[in-house]
Amino acid sequence: MFRIATWGESHGGAVGVSIEGCPPGLALTEADIQPELDRRRPGQSTLTTPRAEGDRCEILSGTFEGRTLGTPIAILVRNEDARSGAYADFARVYRPSHADYTYQAKYEFRTWQGGGRASARETIGRVAAGAVARKVLAEGFGVEVIAWVDRVADVDAKVDLGTVTRAAVEANAVRCPDEAAAARMIERIEAARNGGDSLGGVVRCLARNVPPGWGDPVFDKLDADLAKALMSLPACKGVEVGSGFEGTRLTGSQHNDAFYMDGERVRTRTNRSGGVQGGISNGEEVLVAAAFKPTATIAKPQETVNEAGEAVTLKAKGRHDPCVLPRAVPIVEAMVAVVLCDHHLRHRGQCGP
Amino acid sequence: MFRIATWGESHGGAVGVSIEGCPPGLALTEADIQPELDRRRPGQSTLTTPRAEGDRCEILSGTFEGRTLGTPIAILVRNEDARSGAYADFARVYRPSHADYTYQAKYEFRTWQGGGRASARETIGRVAAGAVARKVLAEGFGVEVIAWVDRVADVDAKVDLGTVTRAAVEANAVRCPDEAAAARMIERIEAARNGGDSLGGVVRCLARNVPPGWGDPVFDKLDADLAKALMSLPACKGVEVGSGFEGTRLTGSQHNDAFYMDGERVRTRTNRSGGVQGGISNGEEVLVAAAFKPTATIAKPQETVNEAGEAVTLKAKGRHDPCVLPRAVPIVEAMVAVVLCDHHLRHRGQCGP
Amino acid sequence: MFRIATWGESHGGAVGVSIEGCPPGLALTEADIQPELDRRRPGQSTLTTPRAEGDRCEILSGTFEGRTLGTPIAILVRNEDARSGAYADFARVYRPSHADYTYQAKYEFRTWQGGGRASARETIGRVAAGAVARKVLAEGFGVEVIAWVDRVADVDAKVDLGTVTRAAVEANAVRCPDEAAAARMIERIEAARNGGDSLGGVVRCLARNVPPGWGDPVFDKLDADLAKALMSLPACKGVEVGSGFEGTRLTGSQHNDAFYMDGERVRTRTNRSGGVQGGISNGEEVLVAAAFKPTATIAKPQETVNEAGEAVTLKAKGRHDPCVLPRAVPIVEAMVAVVLCDHHLRHRGQCGP
Amino acid sequence: MFRIATWGESHGGAVGVSIEGCPPGLALTEADIQPELDRRRPGQSTLTTPRAEGDRCEILSGTFEGRTLGTPIAILVRNEDARSGAYADFARVYRPSHADYTYQAKYEFRTWQGGGRASARETIGRVAAGAVARKVLAEGFGVEVIAWVDRVADVDAKVDLGTVTRAAVEANAVRCPDEAAAARMIERIEAARNGGDSLGGVVRCLARNVPPGWGDPVFDKLDADLAKALMSLPACKGVEVGSGFEGTRLTGSQHNDAFYMDGERVRTRTNRSGGVQGGISNGEEVLVAAAFKPTATIAKPQETVNEAGEAVTLKAKGRHDPCVLPRAVPIVEAMVAVVLCDHHLRHRGQCGP
Repeated sequence: MFRIATWGESHGGAVGVSIEGCPPGLALTEADIQPELDRRRPGQSTLTTPRAEGDRCEILSGTFEGRTLGTPIAILVRNEDARSGAYADFARVYRPSHADYTYQAKYEFRTWQGGGRASARETIGRVAAGAVARKVLAEGFGVEVIAWVDRVADVDAKVDLGTVTRAAVEANAVRCPDEAAAARMIERIEAARNGGDSLGGVVRCLARNVPPGWGDPVFDKLDADLAKALMSLPACKGVEVGSGFEGTRLTGSQHNDAFYMDGERVRTRTNRSGGVQGGISNGEEVLVAAAFKPTATIAKPQETVNEAGEAVTLKAKGRHDPCVLPRAVPIVEAMVAVVLCDHHLRHRGQCGP
Repeated sequence: MFRIATWGESHGGAVGVSIEGCPPGLALTEADIQPELDRRRPGQSTLTTPRAEGDRCEILSGTFEGRTLGTPIAILVRNEDARSGAYADFARVYRPSHADYTYQAKYEFRTWQGGGRASARETIGRVAAGAVARKVLAEGFGVEVIAWVDRVADVDAKVDLGTVTRAAVEANAVRCPDEAAAARMIERIEAARNGGDSLGGVVRCLARNVPPGWGDPVFDKLDADLAKALMSLPACKGVEVGSGFEGTRLTGSQHNDAFYMDGERVRTRTNRSGGVQGGISNGEEVLVAAAFKPTATIAKPQETVNEAGEAVTLKAKGRHDPCVLPRAVPIVEAMVAVVLCDHHLRHRGQCGP
Repeated sequence: MFRIATWGESHGGAVGVSIEGCPPGLALTEADIQPELDRRRPGQSTLTTPRAEGDRCEILSGTFEGRTLGTPIAILVRNEDARSGAYADFARVYRPSHADYTYQAKYEFRTWQGGGRASARETIGRVAAGAVARKVLAEGFGVEVIAWVDRVADVDAKVDLGTVTRAAVEANAVRCPDEAAAARMIERIEAARNGGDSLGGVVRCLARNVPPGWGDPVFDKLDADLAKALMSLPACKGVEVGSGFEGTRLTGSQHNDAFYMDGERVRTRTNRSGGVQGGISNGEEVLVAAAFKPTATIAKPQETVNEAGEAVTLKAKGRHDPCVLPRAVPIVEAMVAVVLCDHHLRHRGQCGP
Repeated sequence: MFRIATWGESHGGAVGVSIEGCPPGLALTEADIQPELDRRRPGQSTLTTPRAEGDRCEILSGTFEGRTLGTPIAILVRNEDARSGAYADFARVYRPSHADYTYQAKYEFRTWQGGGRASARETIGRVAAGAVARKVLAEGFGVEVIAWVDRVADVDAKVDLGTVTRAAVEANAVRCPDEAAAARMIERIEAARNGGDSLGGVVRCLARNVPPGWGDPVFDKLDADLAKALMSLPACKGVEVGSGFEGTRLTGSQHNDAFYMDGERVRTRTNRSGGVQGGISNGEEVLVAAAFKPTATIAKPQETVNEAGEAVTLKAKGRHDPCVLPRAVPIVEAMVAVVLCDHHLRHRGQCGP
């Protein structure tokens, strides 16, 4: 019901998104979207790629006098600092753990400029759509979506789910609300960058105030849709809901979330379910995590092959993040918001009055 | 393109599946499907629920003289041993970590018999569809899909990805090809059952001979669709592709899969990508894992509430698996096969000659 | 949101439908569906094929204690009187204006028994789904859907849209509420049957009490979805909404529907729009028409070719309707109800409170 | 598989389209699209609205070095001559037979500028997508799609289906290849315009060289999708395939298309089926027609109501076409091409080698 479709390549004319199904009458201007794009934008700190993109968004349709019409909302961001020359040297080379080879295998034709459609620039459209979704959720239900960097390499953060705020997340360049861990993470990322290498880690995300009843019983379970949305992000290799992989080490009697009455409200004493049971929200915090591999682009030389089938050594010259995690935070939030908004509208359609 | 839709509740008249988009001309009878249903069936061993269901399938449409027509294939399995009486005692009770409460919250009406639509009986349809998908893939490309129990609680298996066979998986009741680990797993599961408790774990799955080029660049990435399909399974709380969560502890230079030429074929020396790069298969083994929580139904008494908002103590009397992992193996294989078959047909549509 | 998928061939084991998205809590048993199937059933009168099918339906899933669960509703009807022997003589012959040749061209494999998937038996599932949709619409909004035979060959009926009732439609075998015209239609159909020939005509359909606001602005306009649903019926060659083709002979000042206030309600003095403006219902009667060609199967000998590319003469021996119009009436109603129900739920999702 | 989504309002910043599923490697630049937009553009002759729009398109994504990448193609056209002031006088008035009232009823908020999303400017995106689809079809199969004005009010054209060319269609301002009829049509349209009134009519369209086998058996029949695509056009009130409504006056023996062998090719001696049998193309010309009502905007005063529920008299001042038919020709062609291209790719996916 709330459907987004992005378009755009890293070095084409522009990237953008079309949002269908946004309810009418919502106050919406570029000012609601730009702050989220700024959080995603490159060049925010020394932890991110120096590519200089203003990433200014323009709403082309779907609003009138600052309110949504219920019709498709198209949002455009022009590409500015697209120095494709940096890529010319390895135009025909398959960069390891990038999508160069698979795009060539699938389409038999590809752009070699900055990864083309596989570039993380595609996520601009997702973040813009997420800003819209978040507004729908916040105004309708007070839903709050907060993500943070929970681990970089083996540096773990300790975060209290009940009290974490976006302000605490935004308080440092690595977007980790555990300040001590954040300092170690930053140190590690800078060391990796200086060594021509890169790091991965885990982003965790919660959504508060999601009402019970959102989701679908079988294929389109709320958690299944969240898993797909997160796994569709560049560099994501794993997804968890609630207790995730660690929870499988418990017994059923340890793992089950006991129900109790909190006044009129049915609640659970623990939240290993991650706010989703049988694919449907239960009113507790929705809790997910996404694993992001270390950035594939590194400065160290790598063995690979080119389109001609020759062995070559690659030394990257593009501009890249030594660790995508800090910039992944707003992207994860956006995807969670989009999926929740979609299920909110689907629930209203199927079970409304 | 290869679309499946299941229907049916645990204690209704029947469960089934409709498959749209299966290519025409494929040899297909019930004999191709029944063996997979038998692997999923309850009552195979002391590790599984004693519910006695023959799970005999009937193909109602879509074939003629033993070959597929290209039209929808409907497959039906009648429910037989549906002793709903066992559930009557706690008809109005919300079982912890089941979907009783969320279904009530969503639909304001539900069947209390055996979990209704949330029952794992729904997966019969998936397994039937998976048998069809697997046949399409095997005949067209020699694709082989093999899953196994890789961990139960904290008992890990050691499995060689290059040589594991379905025969080795089927050699014991727990479906773990590491015989020593299998023995410990079985011991642990029986102990849990005897203690009125349950265990979880991890199923791992690989697909061999998937050609390069299957998948989609952005939202419908091959790995995103695999993640959704697996997370939509009952009790699944986490999904990994390739190196998954552990891979995030490596650096980029450790993690990247170097390309090399194997004769005319582009290959990677390692497979941390799990056979998918940028959402598209690269010709290496597709490798995924799914985390299954400990079975929510346990014999131990549990605190919970009922529909009237009263605190009650639940002691389950239904028939259940102390550990779903062994029966999850054919289900995981089925979902992987269905997603691969869908992307095979989509690729053929978009990039065919 | 209200999605139906049918399956089944004319001479396979069964035909059926799966309905997804039906709201929960609706009272529903086979008794709500069977009367509509009986209206569609062959053998009702001398105007229809003598094939003897009881067409008894069974609800296999999606209900509990006589009410819908919100989960998929699967409905099954077994094929009984499938005398495929009658077709054996022309198994390899392409019957003119049937789908034999196109199915062969598309699938390179087909069932020659009674048209297979192209048989009008497929519409059983549609009629069953229509009965469910009609119930949702009637209970929620008092929506009433009435179709009738408006023309057979060149025999036109005169029908008052404001007063026509289903009882008047059902009062004769041809389902034309203009008794005088009905008598002439019956005479013409019997003459065609006796001459080994067949007739076509037009079914008209209205839906009363559709609230304003159902529909979508562009591709999924309410009238566009109605057009698709009707054109997807066997033998349909044309669709009209409101004034249709004849309305194009008027000028704008003659054709426009002037608005006026009827108490608090905005209404139009005429209804050339057919209750839909800009793809969205305006609260007036939704009015559509469908053209059905003369039945392709006739007893007269016909020139054609067979699969071997040889010229042959075909003389049909199957059992067929000399005019499909009377049995098309409940099918048209079903499709209109399904489309309206879908747009009702979509509207509730997108614009609900 | 070939999916288009348009966005944009009449007086917003821009209109556009996103095309997903276009095969990779197709030569494509703005020069392939602009000529079709120019055919649709206002201000081409005295028969069309004088609104001055250059309608210059820009491809924002999906191509590289002049060839398609297989990724989404976004095409943008800025709105230029959007004189919304002309609409301010009747901002709160429901124009008869426009979508003002239904949009208000659905969304409870709307733009009163030029019809907003209901404006025919939305069709710019469709025409752009049609240009791409047509190129895919022409290069792959030599498919040729030609539409023309077949009737204006009661002025009928005589057009030979076997020989009609696009050049003949483009030879006059009304896009009717029967020059004598065209002259009478132009006369009638100018008289209507001078009288402050408007006219409707019928556009007919054929597609040559469509191979047999494209289409789907049931809901997504080729002709059903064509019907939906055409009925979704502004002002369309009826759709026909092949013999349409008139064909229902024939008997089966008169109507059936006899098969014969034309060398190795199975052909039909007549084409009352319109190139589609059982929802699947049979290799003959695909033949459809669309009825367009007289333009709703007229200069003559009209009785109506406003948002406050008051009776008012409307006298339009916007810029409008006295007859939409000539500009509808490229739009109809675009929709037919898009539907054919989609079914081409679907067929390749389902039944390919």
